[in-house]
Amino acid sequence: MAFPSPDLQACIDACLTCLSACETCAAACLNEPDLEMMRACIRLDRDCADLCALTARLLLRGSTLHAQAYALCAAACDACAAECAQHHHDHCQRCAEACRQCAQACRVLAA
Amino acid sequence: MAFPSPDLQACIDACLTCLSACETCAAACLNEPDLEMMRACIRLDRDCADLCALTARLLLRGSTLHAQAYALCAAACDACAAECAQHHHDHCQRCAEACRQCAQACRVLAA
Amino acid sequence: MAFPSPDLQACIDACLTCLSACETCAAACLNEPDLEMMRACIRLDRDCADLCALTARLLLRGSTLHAQAYALCAAACDACAAECAQHHHDHCQRCAEACRQCAQACRVLAA
Amino acid sequence: MAFPSPDLQACIDACLTCLSACETCAAACLNEPDLEMMRACIRLDRDCADLCALTARLLLRGSTLHAQAYALCAAACDACAAECAQHHHDHCQRCAEACRQCAQACRVLAA
Repeated sequence: MAFPSPDLQACIDACLTCLSACETCAAACLNEPDLEMMRACIRLDRDCADLCALTARLLLRGSTLHAQAYALCAAACDACAAECAQHHHDHCQRCAEACRQCAQACRVLAA
Repeated sequence: MAFPSPDLQACIDACLTCLSACETCAAACLNEPDLEMMRACIRLDRDCADLCALTARLLLRGSTLHAQAYALCAAACDACAAECAQHHHDHCQRCAEACRQCAQACRVLAA
Repeated sequence: MAFPSPDLQACIDACLTCLSACETCAAACLNEPDLEMMRACIRLDRDCADLCALTARLLLRGSTLHAQAYALCAAACDACAAECAQHHHDHCQRCAEACRQCAQACRVLAA
Repeated sequence: MAFPSPDLQACIDACLTCLSACETCAAACLNEPDLEMMRACIRLDRDCADLCALTARLLLRGSTLHAQAYALCAAACDACAAECAQHHHDHCQRCAEACRQCAQACRVLAA
């Protein structure tokens, strides 16, 4: 059987895309005039970026911890998506979408 | 209230000690004459090092994802301790002990 | 001006592709029958994966440390490419190519 | 000869202490009333934390990339120390001190 499977590869790609969106969003939030409103967004972007990076790497190496990693990554993505969706900045909206897609890809694998 | 609490600080310290033991063990395993026997140990050291590093950082920053992180870190430590304990190398025995203490510290916080 | 620039985006993409190739190669090497020959490859895959992940993240966030990061990432990629190129395994050959492209992308930015 | 040497172990310890101080400072800055003044501090804390974590791990595993890693880590620590020293918050002052000690430990090894 091919490794990684299509679902696994889709999840790895979603994690790396979400990592990129979260790093971009955190850095852009730190430049925004309404910084006061972006505290939670920056915090969650950081956690989500770290979780997505870790999860992608665990999946790429075929780690036996994958099931728990999906769950933790999906939780990070859900929290980040919910916060980002409340902000009108383009980087927040793009990040929310990347988080939703990553959470969904993690849940496909967990199922 | 002081931050971090004694239990939290103990867990952060245990994670960083375990990260160090796992990195040391993985590198030493890659130099061992009986490399053939060390495949699983190297794999689990890598995962455990990554999880300990992540968990320490999430705890230090007061992340809202802490509960799931404890569980995943404890799972990584349990798996790594079980494997390392089977090998007589000093670095494996030290790593097994660091993993057990880290798993225990994570469970104290989870309780 | 658009951020990231095309060269910057190309380097971020090359880093993430190389991270994936290095993680895949390290895990596959740990499964090879000729494990004895793969010690250096596993070591360099690990370092290169870590450096590529870090560099991608520093570039995505517009870090002021970018110039030094390019140089360190290119050095990691050069070393990993040179080692991987000596092994006939598909994962090693693919990793060597990803490393070469990432080193090149880092040098375009450094220039 | 013992591995790690005293200077190497001191540098690993300094990196892990600095990682902790930077994570703590970044999280605390994100809670400060004068958030507007802390933008650069948060950015540099993040970079410095990532570099200290990476450098500690490369040193622990005896990576061949150590010389370049010292230089990059020292640069991150210098930049973070200079910024943190300008803020009166306890977490900034403690972080500045940890950064100075880590930069110094990196330079001892580089010499």
